[in-house]
Amino acid sequence: MLAPDRMLPTEPALRGIAREIHQQTARLPVVSMHGHVDARLLAENRPFTDPAELFVTSDHYVVRMLVSQGVPLEQIGMPAAHEAVAVETDPRAIWRTFCANWHLFRGTPSRYWLEHELVDVFGVPHRPSAETADAIYDHLVAMLERDEYLPRALLDRFDIEILATTDSATSTLGGHAALAREGYGERIVPTFRPDGLLHPTAASWPQSVRRLAERSGIDIAGYDDFLDALGERRRTFIAMGARATDHGHLHADTTPLDHTDAARIFATALRGEVSERDADAFSSHMLFEMARMSVDDGLVMQIHAGVLRDHNAEVRRRFGPDRGFDIPVGAEFTRNLRPLLEAFGREPGMRLVVFTVDETVYSRELAPLAGVYPAMRLGAPWWFLDSPHGMRRFRELVTETAGFYNTSGFVDDARAFASIPARHDLSRRIDAGYLARLVGEGQLTLDEAVETAIDLAYRLPLEAYARRSEHAVSSLGVGADAYR
Amino acid sequence: MLAPDRMLPTEPALRGIAREIHQQTARLPVVSMHGHVDARLLAENRPFTDPAELFVTSDHYVVRMLVSQGVPLEQIGMPAAHEAVAVETDPRAIWRTFCANWHLFRGTPSRYWLEHELVDVFGVPHRPSAETADAIYDHLVAMLERDEYLPRALLDRFDIEILATTDSATSTLGGHAALAREGYGERIVPTFRPDGLLHPTAASWPQSVRRLAERSGIDIAGYDDFLDALGERRRTFIAMGARATDHGHLHADTTPLDHTDAARIFATALRGEVSERDADAFSSHMLFEMARMSVDDGLVMQIHAGVLRDHNAEVRRRFGPDRGFDIPVGAEFTRNLRPLLEAFGREPGMRLVVFTVDETVYSRELAPLAGVYPAMRLGAPWWFLDSPHGMRRFRELVTETAGFYNTSGFVDDARAFASIPARHDLSRRIDAGYLARLVGEGQLTLDEAVETAIDLAYRLPLEAYARRSEHAVSSLGVGADAYR
Amino acid sequence: MLAPDRMLPTEPALRGIAREIHQQTARLPVVSMHGHVDARLLAENRPFTDPAELFVTSDHYVVRMLVSQGVPLEQIGMPAAHEAVAVETDPRAIWRTFCANWHLFRGTPSRYWLEHELVDVFGVPHRPSAETADAIYDHLVAMLERDEYLPRALLDRFDIEILATTDSATSTLGGHAALAREGYGERIVPTFRPDGLLHPTAASWPQSVRRLAERSGIDIAGYDDFLDALGERRRTFIAMGARATDHGHLHADTTPLDHTDAARIFATALRGEVSERDADAFSSHMLFEMARMSVDDGLVMQIHAGVLRDHNAEVRRRFGPDRGFDIPVGAEFTRNLRPLLEAFGREPGMRLVVFTVDETVYSRELAPLAGVYPAMRLGAPWWFLDSPHGMRRFRELVTETAGFYNTSGFVDDARAFASIPARHDLSRRIDAGYLARLVGEGQLTLDEAVETAIDLAYRLPLEAYARRSEHAVSSLGVGADAYR
Repeated sequence: MLAPDRMLPTEPALRGIAREIHQQTARLPVVSMHGHVDARLLAENRPFTDPAELFVTSDHYVVRMLVSQGVPLEQIGMPAAHEAVAVETDPRAIWRTFCANWHLFRGTPSRYWLEHELVDVFGVPHRPSAETADAIYDHLVAMLERDEYLPRALLDRFDIEILATTDSATSTLGGHAALAREGYGERIVPTFRPDGLLHPTAASWPQSVRRLAERSGIDIAGYDDFLDALGERRRTFIAMGARATDHGHLHADTTPLDHTDAARIFATALRGEVSERDADAFSSHMLFEMARMSVDDGLVMQIHAGVLRDHNAEVRRRFGPDRGFDIPVGAEFTRNLRPLLEAFGREPGMRLVVFTVDETVYSRELAPLAGVYPAMRLGAPWWFLDSPHGMRRFRELVTETAGFYNTSGFVDDARAFASIPARHDLSRRIDAGYLARLVGEGQLTLDEAVETAIDLAYRLPLEAYARRSEHAVSSLGVGADAYR
Repeated sequence: MLAPDRMLPTEPALRGIAREIHQQTARLPVVSMHGHVDARLLAENRPFTDPAELFVTSDHYVVRMLVSQGVPLEQIGMPAAHEAVAVETDPRAIWRTFCANWHLFRGTPSRYWLEHELVDVFGVPHRPSAETADAIYDHLVAMLERDEYLPRALLDRFDIEILATTDSATSTLGGHAALAREGYGERIVPTFRPDGLLHPTAASWPQSVRRLAERSGIDIAGYDDFLDALGERRRTFIAMGARATDHGHLHADTTPLDHTDAARIFATALRGEVSERDADAFSSHMLFEMARMSVDDGLVMQIHAGVLRDHNAEVRRRFGPDRGFDIPVGAEFTRNLRPLLEAFGREPGMRLVVFTVDETVYSRELAPLAGVYPAMRLGAPWWFLDSPHGMRRFRELVTETAGFYNTSGFVDDARAFASIPARHDLSRRIDAGYLARLVGEGQLTLDEAVETAIDLAYRLPLEAYARRSEHAVSSLGVGADAYR
Repeated sequence: MLAPDRMLPTEPALRGIAREIHQQTARLPVVSMHGHVDARLLAENRPFTDPAELFVTSDHYVVRMLVSQGVPLEQIGMPAAHEAVAVETDPRAIWRTFCANWHLFRGTPSRYWLEHELVDVFGVPHRPSAETADAIYDHLVAMLERDEYLPRALLDRFDIEILATTDSATSTLGGHAALAREGYGERIVPTFRPDGLLHPTAASWPQSVRRLAERSGIDIAGYDDFLDALGERRRTFIAMGARATDHGHLHADTTPLDHTDAARIFATALRGEVSERDADAFSSHMLFEMARMSVDDGLVMQIHAGVLRDHNAEVRRRFGPDRGFDIPVGAEFTRNLRPLLEAFGREPGMRLVVFTVDETVYSRELAPLAGVYPAMRLGAPWWFLDSPHGMRRFRELVTETAGFYNTSGFVDDARAFASIPARHDLSRRIDAGYLARLVGEGQLTLDEAVETAIDLAYRLPLEAYARRSEHAVSSLGVGADAYR
């Protein structure tokens, strides 16, 4: 059984206060405004394949930890893309490798989430180890065959009020269309992610542009057509329930080009002759353009900046993306976001949510920016930072400058569907602990702390991701009170 | 009532130790060696205008938080400089907006300071809210009419032993002259801030140079005259009691130019033809020159580096400076301070106090530099970092490398006069907590902790800001013992 | 007496758990895989000279703290290299200066280590101060005359299982040879440090290359000879027991040159005509080459990056290196280590241990890299960061992403021989406290915490520094389990 007071402060007085706060948020519905669950999983609603697929191979946190200790990717079932290498295909063997390495996860959030899933979601009575691997495997297989472990049954059991997926700008949104036909259209919503279209030196760019033309029905002969097609696709996403766009860029530069330069670079890119430098400038320019479109159509804009994808070219070539070899680099926001914020940061129709994996900018740049620009909210700790210490540092580094109400509340970024409740529960416990300390230090009263905890877990993400066009935005707004 | 143990450690054993330490510093006089109170406030000694002016519109921390949640600057009385827009002029209406948004300040130092001021200084019995706004307003108006709330009465009540203001190098120092005539000359002292003269591309630079010529009585035809005039003004400031200079630069580069280059750039600047690049080099050079002058005249040199002022050009244009749109950028000190420290860092007559808003340099650069160069002291956490967590992180990141005695002790940087006691009290509580932990962990004895706490609150700032020429500086000094 | 629970968590419940954990590691042998003790000290096994030499002048942490408060280097016996200045030569006088300034060390790890040494190693019954200086001095002198305070007696008393020294690549290893003859060959081992040969613009480079030729017996006419000679020396070091190489570079760039460019730069360097830019490229290239050699010969590769040596040229000129004027600069690893890690990061024969003094890269770069590349381990907190708060921040910033098993365990970097037990004990206490918190929060069971503590103190450093060629490296390894 999971310890009822896990992750609350260890000090008795604070633990008592934190428990009181957490009791007020523990049963709130889950608002999951950003993640990587595939809509088809819920549209098809078929049983999960097997424990190895559910817990190991689909989770790049787990994959990378095993790899870091010398486990070859092949041994955990990673198919080498272009070469004939013996790959482990028996899920039970993969599961055994995972369980034998359970000690590697000590002190990591993966351990915390996995334990929560195994114990709380699946009722596993053993601690993973080489000895218990088979028994746990059999237990899980038996559970996965039951109707109550079908994806939509879990959606209800997890009490997920809204689930946003992440979808390529050129997606057919077939899963979402199917879900909409079954009445899930407002509950499971797509997110517009045009990354593949905004970096013209990516190998797949020409194909992405062709696909954009197909999907939008707009012939893309030049830059203006490209913008029109993007706008058309945004409208389609909005019609399918989308609340937001999402942008994964190496840096957050938002310097706009003038129209002539943008059109010229786009034309050279279409001819396959664009330089790395021009492509980079174009990609920054397009962030600015995406902001302009957000002001018009009300889609909330998310920026996830600062990760160098595929640090190891050979792994990328042999095994594909998302194998754990994405590594953060230093980030800069004060100067990079300036063009966007000067142009749109005080527009009532604009909402920008910024995520980083570089903690050095929390107190130095992001909290001061979010603490003055009305359009900006600071996203929750992302990726490696979505962890107990990561979330504590976030609150400690951000709150004193930005307050609580310039943050987005909790946003989970889950790939593993079954990890969503663990992640939200952990966040609520950490926030309860942080708020308990403010109460214990005499900075807040308990009723203020409870209200803030509820806001962080539930109201703030709903408000942060409300489409601005639908939202009653008053230019004389009184801030967070607006949704009380 | 404020909780007597507020901001002390929550753990009972540490709280007891911290309380013992804090009791030894709670009643010490306030030494306020850097801030932005206007000397005329004390020279004129008239009642404060109204609650909105006292607590809201004069405090850029409060202004920016309201703006961040969509409150237009006009709604809180910010006069748009060049345009005819309806501006709220009723202080009671501004006060209501502030109180209705009280929740935005949860977890921020503003909340802590404001609560201290309202409760402890003004005896307000209500928690701010939309409902209580009028009652609090009326209470404050009644208080402000009383003699005991006149600025000089508060100066005594706050037990401020010395208050340093910040003054343009071209100031007439009229307020200080008036105060000197009434016997406050040693208690309220100016600080020499020549920023407006050191950045030749600033729009106001030509006017500043003309004013420098006027004030100094030196005709400024070239660079040598400029240096003479600066020296003359420094002497005037010293005569008025100044202890220190202050320098707000975007970066801390101190690379000197040779005299010919400096003179050439100054000449082109006088003709209005200086390039951004030359102006930047000149500004770095002048930091070096200011250090040279400090070695000669004994003024302590302060550097506040790393803030990009006026991030939003439109806000600057319409509403002026200091509206909350000043945002930090990454800082570098190891290489930037090297020329200055190699030349003057081991000079007995030199004292440099360095402030940053970039916490990444605390343990990496500033503590190692202050931990070896005798001229250097590390200033207290500044601006956004002058906060409970900010001060704790400072001690945790700095002490192990620089010790306590290479820091300046507490320096407040207050704009709001009535917030000074709250700020000093908070700092004393945080330091008491930090020292209590060292005692609890067996690193210090209680008597050492108490002595250190007194040094940080009182003796160290006095020593750090003692004019070096007046100070008995022994080249074979035994450090902090010198002033025991 | 030292407090038995010093540096354990102050909270009673956690302290109890931490005490249980610490009891399991407190008596483990010391594994000291990196440090600066001179092998001759143990080969000669003569009494330590005097207290001033043992505790003050040989410890740059102590020297710099005294200097930072105005104590001239001459006053603590630092011989000015090229000038006739009066230097204090009486060790008792130096000792008095140190004791009179004892308060400067409050809150620093130096204070902690010194107190441990004085009390626990030497049985000193007084707290250092101006008053007690002479009594302590006399006590220490009496102890140092005893056989039980000879270096090898202390080696046994400290229970040092293995001690790695740091040795120039051109060292004769005379001390090590003498120790080997007396049966200490496996217990006291050298480390191959070729820095002097890898930076061709260093003043001593030509002499170092000549010495390399002499020692290796290879005439160095060009780049290929240079590589051969380095390889030869590595083999000699391995024959003397070396486990590792060590590389102190300003930045961690590992970009390789092609052979022609490397040979050309080496040739210009031999002629004394190399440019700073080429020398820098060569030095980065050589890090890559050292990695290649490590894959071949199994020496573990250590990189210590990011310290600007000799910040003050005058101090360097007058007093020599290691006087406290080495200051960190910002570090970057994601891009800098990429060439090395892409080439060798997944080689079973490779082991890279990375150290930094820039904490900003812990969570952003080093933990993600160590958390996926099997060759890489994250070294222990280094230099200024080898301190209570420094070690706590390291665990908090690193563990959630890299786990415990991608770190090297404790590595001490001691110069002062007598400080080794204090440093290891401190590390074990801090780790016990960190693990106790994970137990208290429900993240680990007590048995897992104890096992992890033992691994961090003992097994992990042994495993991290096992020569890869000797180690049973399975390409299908199960990570840390391999050495259980």
